[in-house]
Amino acid sequence: MSDSKEPIDFYFDFSSPYGYFAAAKIEALAAKHGRGVTWHPILLGAVFKLNGQQPLANIPLKGSYAKHDMLRSARWFGLPFKVPSRFPVNTVAPCRAFYWVHDQDAALAKQFAAALYHAYFAEDRDISSAEITANVAAKLGIDKPALSAALNDAAVKERTRSEVDAAIERGVFGSPYMVIDGEPFWGADRLDQMERWLEKGRW
Amino acid sequence: MSDSKEPIDFYFDFSSPYGYFAAAKIEALAAKHGRGVTWHPILLGAVFKLNGQQPLANIPLKGSYAKHDMLRSARWFGLPFKVPSRFPVNTVAPCRAFYWVHDQDAALAKQFAAALYHAYFAEDRDISSAEITANVAAKLGIDKPALSAALNDAAVKERTRSEVDAAIERGVFGSPYMVIDGEPFWGADRLDQMERWLEKGRW
Repeated sequence: MSDSKEPIDFYFDFSSPYGYFAAAKIEALAAKHGRGVTWHPILLGAVFKLNGQQPLANIPLKGSYAKHDMLRSARWFGLPFKVPSRFPVNTVAPCRAFYWVHDQDAALAKQFAAALYHAYFAEDRDISSAEITANVAAKLGIDKPALSAALNDAAVKERTRSEVDAAIERGVFGSPYMVIDGEPFWGADRLDQMERWLEKGRW
Repeated sequence: MSDSKEPIDFYFDFSSPYGYFAAAKIEALAAKHGRGVTWHPILLGAVFKLNGQQPLANIPLKGSYAKHDMLRSARWFGLPFKVPSRFPVNTVAPCRAFYWVHDQDAALAKQFAAALYHAYFAEDRDISSAEITANVAAKLGIDKPALSAALNDAAVKERTRSEVDAAIERGVFGSPYMVIDGEPFWGADRLDQMERWLEKGRW
């Protein structure tokens, strides 16, 4: 970045279709306005527990609309999409894997996150599996045995937990959730408001 | 309308800020594409009961974001807005009043709905009150004593109940909720997808 603007904080859960849509768009949006993006995968399960919320798909009428809206929104954003056979899934493995990769190579971690999202939402591969997560990593040249070991490493677990706690502490309650200079935006359908904010600041 | 396109069905609760935003935009959007709009006020409380949902404002982290997002979205849509002192409120009185007016004059009922939304979200008047609802009506030249009596009329009650039941039957679970030729859209943030749908049909 050519100036001193703060990066956008981007919170997401790997099981969130709207997180997938935002992940595909946010770097270009940020770059256009001279910003970087800090990616923060989180575990929505922990947040929902705190709030008494349920995943969209569990709410009777909302569930069938949700599937429909995911498919239409994927077309809206021009992204490949299949409704996963298992949805939502536990994303502890991809989340830990992300932070482990991130602490070695932050740029590679973003590629890895994009590849995990693609595996889950475009190829219907169950990324809750440590094996599948490690295979996605291996394709990017990441050391598979080292990554597989890291998934059960106490320090990696603690690193992931502290990221999730920090997100909750900050008020993150959904995915995607973006913060620009302290201003929060929830949902892939706030990318338009974010764009105006990046252009003009508070309007 | 110059052709035979079906009107857009527009479901909303008078206590829903995003319903207010959509109500302010939907007629122009529809007219641009040769459509009319059928307005259907509903009682979200009945839907939430069925689904085990809670109003946004009752969910801890979501509540404070919700207020923030309402204010920002009002600026986004260019509409006057105050967070109401009481929110959400029971909207049985405005809902019954709407259907009573509608059955005499459908165009006037839309003006009345817009005026009720303005009273609640721009002037912070508590439209759950039968008296305030009737005052908003009176300003449009609607017979106030007749409207006040209608609020407790068995036929008007039944008419309202059957509208709400029909909406639930159709799968309406939130506000605003729009249906174009069978295609459902939930939220003021789907107006952009609706516009593309109106232009191109399924994309």
